[in-house]
Amino acid sequence: MRLIGIDLGGTKLSVATFSIEGVIIEQSTILLNTRGGKAVGELIQKEIKKRILAGKRADDPVGSIAVSVPGISNSKDGTVWAPNISGWDKYPLLKELKKIAPEIPVTIESDRACYILGEVWRGSAKGCDNAIYMAVGTGIGAGIIINGNIFRGANDISGAIGWMALKDPYDKKFDSCGYFEYYASGEGIVRLAKELIAENVSYKGLLSEQISLITAYDVFGAYESGDQIAKTVFAKCITYWGMAIANLVSLFNPQKVIIGGGVFGPAKQFVPQIYEEAKKWGQPISMSLFTLECSALGNDAGLYGAGYAALKNLKD
Amino acid sequence: MRLIGIDLGGTKLSVATFSIEGVIIEQSTILLNTRGGKAVGELIQKEIKKRILAGKRADDPVGSIAVSVPGISNSKDGTVWAPNISGWDKYPLLKELKKIAPEIPVTIESDRACYILGEVWRGSAKGCDNAIYMAVGTGIGAGIIINGNIFRGANDISGAIGWMALKDPYDKKFDSCGYFEYYASGEGIVRLAKELIAENVSYKGLLSEQISLITAYDVFGAYESGDQIAKTVFAKCITYWGMAIANLVSLFNPQKVIIGGGVFGPAKQFVPQIYEEAKKWGQPISMSLFTLECSALGNDAGLYGAGYAALKNLKD
Repeated sequence: MRLIGIDLGGTKLSVATFSIEGVIIEQSTILLNTRGGKAVGELIQKEIKKRILAGKRADDPVGSIAVSVPGISNSKDGTVWAPNISGWDKYPLLKELKKIAPEIPVTIESDRACYILGEVWRGSAKGCDNAIYMAVGTGIGAGIIINGNIFRGANDISGAIGWMALKDPYDKKFDSCGYFEYYASGEGIVRLAKELIAENVSYKGLLSEQISLITAYDVFGAYESGDQIAKTVFAKCITYWGMAIANLVSLFNPQKVIIGGGVFGPAKQFVPQIYEEAKKWGQPISMSLFTLECSALGNDAGLYGAGYAALKNLKD
Repeated sequence: MRLIGIDLGGTKLSVATFSIEGVIIEQSTILLNTRGGKAVGELIQKEIKKRILAGKRADDPVGSIAVSVPGISNSKDGTVWAPNISGWDKYPLLKELKKIAPEIPVTIESDRACYILGEVWRGSAKGCDNAIYMAVGTGIGAGIIINGNIFRGANDISGAIGWMALKDPYDKKFDSCGYFEYYASGEGIVRLAKELIAENVSYKGLLSEQISLITAYDVFGAYESGDQIAKTVFAKCITYWGMAIANLVSLFNPQKVIIGGGVFGPAKQFVPQIYEEAKKWGQPISMSLFTLECSALGNDAGLYGAGYAALKNLKD
């Protein structure tokens, strides 16, 4: 028996067939290009059908299917909200996928849930029953495993850690994404750099040209060259990442916190400092009992997580 | 069939017999006085034995027993850590209580877990599967229900919300209890008032005499009289309580947050302002779907929670 795991991103679709031990049998990636709405749903259906057929031919049938989506999967009605895919507001993905092969179980999970599922199955959180993945990319979100299962909350929107309040007073500018994400996401690194440049009129460093075009990678590059603004940006981000991890540990008492997403990546170098910052703030016993680790699966965390979600759904 | 629920506090023991519908058949409270260590365990055993006998005589036997403890209940080995009861460090309470009547199930839960269990059974969170009790007294802690069950974390120390990081930079003075508790607990209110008085040398108001003896109740009293220091204290506490509740809502996506403990009490008057503050910070959808309510059970939340823990243990 084999599993299909699918990781839908904002720009591409990754699909893999897994053995139930978590070994990838085959894997491919398809760019979404201009696809939106129903065309994305149809692409997923097509990829699933192909693999069901391949399984039959190999006399190793597909036993379960799961899809990771870049947004919120409503576990009650099987609809998906995915802001980066046009027309995916309450998109009836589960209904569409159930039509393909009604006898094969299908499950849909949010990307952040899949990140931690992937790490538990095949990555840095192997064997953990209580673990959290903090994904720091364009935005920030957390996938949470409690007693071995995905923690969804009352409305499938738990783990919205980008909204974490980390310093008063409130400012309207945090309205669109929350305080923590405003300053400590990929976009936050850029915002912080721009705020600091605006405050330092005498600054003539690496980031002072074409300020409107700065990217997070530019800020990392400037940091490597010893730029003062970039140093201040990451000192602040390290503080916020540390405080956020401390809050997760004090509240959830997990075995592990896994840190990943596009920013970690280049921010991996700061993990020892982030841990030191977190240690100051968190509940001391919980802090002494958890470990902070980087994602072992990188960009494949969501794909592996979808594979594991398929396996878990088969077992349940 | 009846249930025994016991709420052990730092200074007294409350014991009740419940019907399985949650109606109190009889209830009594015993002061611990100078008791510590084994004497407290023996007192609990004595009270249980009496009630088992009473159940037999009434032809309505005790079916399950639960104890709420002011500290941490280790769910793996049945020991208790309770800092306000002398000698209760890894105290083998479960082992002692199991001896009384081996056929009757016994469970031990932390007080904060029992607060939310009580509110779910008979209080403000009736019928909720996902709810949190934020207890603000001498210290601050949270009891958390997820999918109808107590959320314990990997080592039974989840919900240590007093350690929530809410504003950098860190200061060594937060070492003993965490940032949020340092400023926004009953003792925190006093600390904040003292810090503000020290900063305002010209202050000659109600709290300026015998500063070392100020209590939280004095600060509430001064607030009623329009005292400026007290106003500043509660403005800050409202901000912190609001930020902490927003963080709970963004992370846990609960149906309800119940606020209780000795401070709420007099701080109930601030709940509308706390809600407004929380609303600014939290994930907007989760914020729109949760409700903030005061404890309906007050000082009896732990006792009712023990009763419900007994019932749940019977059903499991």
